[in-house]
Amino acid sequence: MNKYTYDDYLVFNSKIADLNGISSLLQWDQEVGMPNESSNGRGRQIASISGIIHELYTSNYNVDLLNDLENNKLLNETQKLNIKLSKRDIQRKLCLTKDFVEELSTAISNSYSSWEEARRKNDFKIFAPALKNLIALKKKEANFINKEKDAYDVFLDEYDTGLKSTEIKEIFETLKPELITLLGQIDNKNKIDTSITNKFFSKDKQWDFGIDLLKNIGFNLNAGRQDISTHPFTINIGEKDIRITTRIEENNLNEMIWSCLHEGGHALYEQGLQQQTFGLPEAEAASLSIHESQSRLWENHIGRGYSFWKYNYKQLQDLFPENLKSIHLNDFYKIINSVKKDLIRTNADELTYHFHIIIRFEIEQLLFLEDFNVDELPEIWNNLYLKYLGVIPENDVKGILQDVHWAHGSFGYFPTYTLGSLYAAQLYEHASRKIGNLEHKIANNDFSEISLWLKSHIYVKGRLSTSKEICNAATGESLNSNYFINYAKQKYGEIYAL
Amino acid sequence: MNKYTYDDYLVFNSKIADLNGISSLLQWDQEVGMPNESSNGRGRQIASISGIIHELYTSNYNVDLLNDLENNKLLNETQKLNIKLSKRDIQRKLCLTKDFVEELSTAISNSYSSWEEARRKNDFKIFAPALKNLIALKKKEANFINKEKDAYDVFLDEYDTGLKSTEIKEIFETLKPELITLLGQIDNKNKIDTSITNKFFSKDKQWDFGIDLLKNIGFNLNAGRQDISTHPFTINIGEKDIRITTRIEENNLNEMIWSCLHEGGHALYEQGLQQQTFGLPEAEAASLSIHESQSRLWENHIGRGYSFWKYNYKQLQDLFPENLKSIHLNDFYKIINSVKKDLIRTNADELTYHFHIIIRFEIEQLLFLEDFNVDELPEIWNNLYLKYLGVIPENDVKGILQDVHWAHGSFGYFPTYTLGSLYAAQLYEHASRKIGNLEHKIANNDFSEISLWLKSHIYVKGRLSTSKEICNAATGESLNSNYFINYAKQKYGEIYAL
Repeated sequence: MNKYTYDDYLVFNSKIADLNGISSLLQWDQEVGMPNESSNGRGRQIASISGIIHELYTSNYNVDLLNDLENNKLLNETQKLNIKLSKRDIQRKLCLTKDFVEELSTAISNSYSSWEEARRKNDFKIFAPALKNLIALKKKEANFINKEKDAYDVFLDEYDTGLKSTEIKEIFETLKPELITLLGQIDNKNKIDTSITNKFFSKDKQWDFGIDLLKNIGFNLNAGRQDISTHPFTINIGEKDIRITTRIEENNLNEMIWSCLHEGGHALYEQGLQQQTFGLPEAEAASLSIHESQSRLWENHIGRGYSFWKYNYKQLQDLFPENLKSIHLNDFYKIINSVKKDLIRTNADELTYHFHIIIRFEIEQLLFLEDFNVDELPEIWNNLYLKYLGVIPENDVKGILQDVHWAHGSFGYFPTYTLGSLYAAQLYEHASRKIGNLEHKIANNDFSEISLWLKSHIYVKGRLSTSKEICNAATGESLNSNYFINYAKQKYGEIYAL
Repeated sequence: MNKYTYDDYLVFNSKIADLNGISSLLQWDQEVGMPNESSNGRGRQIASISGIIHELYTSNYNVDLLNDLENNKLLNETQKLNIKLSKRDIQRKLCLTKDFVEELSTAISNSYSSWEEARRKNDFKIFAPALKNLIALKKKEANFINKEKDAYDVFLDEYDTGLKSTEIKEIFETLKPELITLLGQIDNKNKIDTSITNKFFSKDKQWDFGIDLLKNIGFNLNAGRQDISTHPFTINIGEKDIRITTRIEENNLNEMIWSCLHEGGHALYEQGLQQQTFGLPEAEAASLSIHESQSRLWENHIGRGYSFWKYNYKQLQDLFPENLKSIHLNDFYKIINSVKKDLIRTNADELTYHFHIIIRFEIEQLLFLEDFNVDELPEIWNNLYLKYLGVIPENDVKGILQDVHWAHGSFGYFPTYTLGSLYAAQLYEHASRKIGNLEHKIANNDFSEISLWLKSHIYVKGRLSTSKEICNAATGESLNSNYFINYAKQKYGEIYAL
C-alpha cells in the first residue's frame, strides 16, 4: 500500500516549477527593465524565493514522496524514470548542508563582485583571491556529492548527465588539428570586407526584422516575448511563457540577427517541451549540450546558411536599401560567414569559436589539480592563445576576464558550447538526409519538417533521455566531430575557395 | 526578559514586504506584458506566492513575536505603534479559517469570470447569482472579523481605519445638493467644444510628453518606471521600485495626460514613504482615501490648473502644432475642464464624477440589508442616474457593469474616491495658504515647496496616523466638503461664467 499517488508528485513538482518561474521572472525583470536603484531589493527578493524553493524542495515531504513512489509497482516506465531522475536531483541537493550552501553562495557573490572590479580595473590579480577560494569550495562541493569521482566530472554531470572529461578530451583532440589546418588555409586567403555590417542600421527597423525572423522560424509570440538586454538570454517563466532577449547596436547588424536566431533556437526547444507535465523531468531540456545544439542549429546551420538568406535577404535589403542595395546575396552570405581571429568568444566566428572553448577546457583541467597556482592563469591563457590562434590579448579584460562563468562558480560549463555545435552538425546532417530537399524548403521559408523532426527526436524526450541517448537514437551513432568538420570544410572551402 | 527583539520584527516584516513585492511584480507583468496564453500559469504562480505569504504571515512565529513585543517596555512610542498596527492586521487575518479564505477566494474568482461574461454579453443577469453568493460570503466575513459592527463598516475599516458609513453619509449629503445646483447652472450654459482633443496625437509623442510631465512633478524614474496597460494603475514592487502605467489613445489626448498625472500622484506618495523600514506600518500609505487624495491633488488641483499649463502648454503645442497651434492657452484650459454628464465613471469630469460614487455608495448601503434583492440592481441603478444626472444608461455595460470592484468583492471601496477628492481640496487649500504664491511657483515648474509640504504632512507619517489624524494635523480641522465645494464653485464659476 503506497502512501502517495503519482498525482501528489505531479502537484508538488508543478508547484516547484511555478516557484522557479517566479524566480525567473525576477531575474528577467532585473535584466530587462528594473529601475536601477532597486538592485538591493531585488537581491533580497531573489534570495527569499530561492530559500523558499530550497526548503520546499529538500523537505521531508518530497523525500518521503519520492521514496514511496520509487517502490510503487503500479507505475509505468515513464513514470518510474521521472521518479528516478527527481530522486537523483534531490540527492545532489541533500548532500550539501545548509551552512555549506550559504558559504558557497557568499563565495560566489564575492567572486562575482571581484570579477566585476577586476574587469573595471583590467587586473586579474583583483579576481585571483576570490577565484582561489571558490575553487577550493567547489572541490569540497564535488567531494560532498561524490567522493569517488573527479571533481570536474561531478560538475560535468550536472550540466550533461554522465558526461566525462576523458570523452570531451578525445573529441576535442580530433577537432583541434582539423580546425588548425582549416584556419591556416583561410589565413592565406584574402580577407572578406565586412565593413558594410557596421554602417548605420536603425534600431526600430532591426527590431522589426528580428521579430519577423522569430515568427518565420516558428517562435510563438503568444506564449513568449522578446525584449532588449545587455546580454541576450533565454528564460523559462512558465510552460506558456518563454522569453528571449536580444541586443541591438545601430552600428553592427550582427548583434541583433545572430542573437535573435541563437536565442530563438533555445526558445523553440523550450516551447516544444511537453506542457501538461510542466515541472517533471520529462518536460525539461535534456542537457546544456543539447540545449546549445538547438541554438546553434538555428543560428549557424539554418541562419548562416545560403538558403535562409535566399528568402530573407530581400526583406533586409528593402529595410536598409541605402546600405544593402548594392550588395549581392552571394557577397552578403560571405560577409556573414567571414572568419577572423577575434579575441572575444561571443564575437567569434563558427571556427575560431572552438579555440575559446578548447582553451577554457584545457585550463579547467588544471584548476582542480593539487598544486595549481591561480596566479599563473593569465600567463597560461596568453600562451594558449599564442599557440592556437597566434595572437595574444592585449589585456586581461580581452583575455581571461572576458566571461562571467568562473566567477559564478560554473566550471565545466564551457565545453557544452562546443559539444552543442558538434551535436548540431550531426543532428542537422541526419535531419537533412531524412527530410530531403531541406535547403529548398528553407529557401521557401518552410520550416515545418525540420521543426517536426526536432520535436520528435529531441523536444518530446525531455530529460528522460541523456544527450548520448538522444544522439544515438536520432543519428544512429555516438557524438563525433566528423559532421562538424565536414560541414566546416565544405562551407568554408566554398566561401574561401580553398 | 523578552524572547524577541525589535530587530526580529524588522527582519520578519521586511521579508513579508519582499514577498508582497514579488506578488506585485507577477501582477504588474500580467497587466503589462505577459504573453496572453500564459494566464493559467500566472494564476497558479500568484496563488502559490499568496499562499506562502498567508502562511508565513499568520504563522505562530509572527503571533508570538507580536505578543512578545507588545509587552516590551523598552520600545519607544513609534515602535509600539508599529507593533500595535501589525497586531491589528494579523488579527483580522486570524479571524478567518483557511477553508473560509479559500471559499471566498473561489467565489471572487467565479464572480470575476461572471462579471466578464456579463459584460461581454451585456447582461447583468449573468453576473447576479455570483454577486449574490459573494455578498452572502462577505457578510459572513464581516461577522467573523467583528460581530458587533455593521458589515459595511467592517469593510470601510479595512480601506480607511475607523471610517464609518454614517460619516460618509453626512459628508455626501452636504456635497450632493451643492453639486446638483452647480451642474444645473453649467447645464444652462453653452457646451465647450472639446473636439480638438480627439484629433490624431501620435503615440510616441504622447509617451514622451507624459514622461516629461512625470519628471517635472518629481517622479524618480531611477526608482520606478512607466508602462502601458489597459487600465492604468500604480504598484509597489519594492522600496525603490514604484511602477505606474498609462493608456494612450491616438484619438484622445485626455487618456494619457490624466492617467499620467493621476498615477504620478499615487507614485509620488509611494516614493515618498520611508524606505529604511520598508514593510512596517510606518512605511506604508495611511489609507485608500489619503492615497486617492494624492492622485487627485496632482491630477486635478495641480494638473487641471491654469498655472500648470502656463508652463507645459507650450511644449504640448510644439509637439502637436497641427492640432494645437491655433488653440489659445485659455481655451485649452477650458477644454480640459469641460463638464459633461458622462455615464462612465473613469471618463467623468471633476464634478459629475462624484455622482458615480454617491450612487455606488447609496446602493452599497442596500446590498447588505436582509431582504435586498440583487436582481433589482439595474433598475435601482437606472433610477438613481435619472434622479441625479437626468440620464439613463442605454445598457448594463454602460451602467452597473462598468466597474470591476464588486466582482472583486470590494465593497466600501468606491466612497474612498470621493473622500480622496475632498481630502485633496482641503489639503491643497491649506498647503497653498502656507506656501504662498504656489500658483506662481507651479507656473515656473517649481514643485519643491508643495512636494516638501506633502512629504512632511503626509508621506512621512506612513500608516501611524489615520486619515482623520493626518487631516486634522495638516489643516486644523476634520474633513468636510466645504473646501471642495468652494474650489468647484470658483473654478467652474469662472470657466462657465456662472
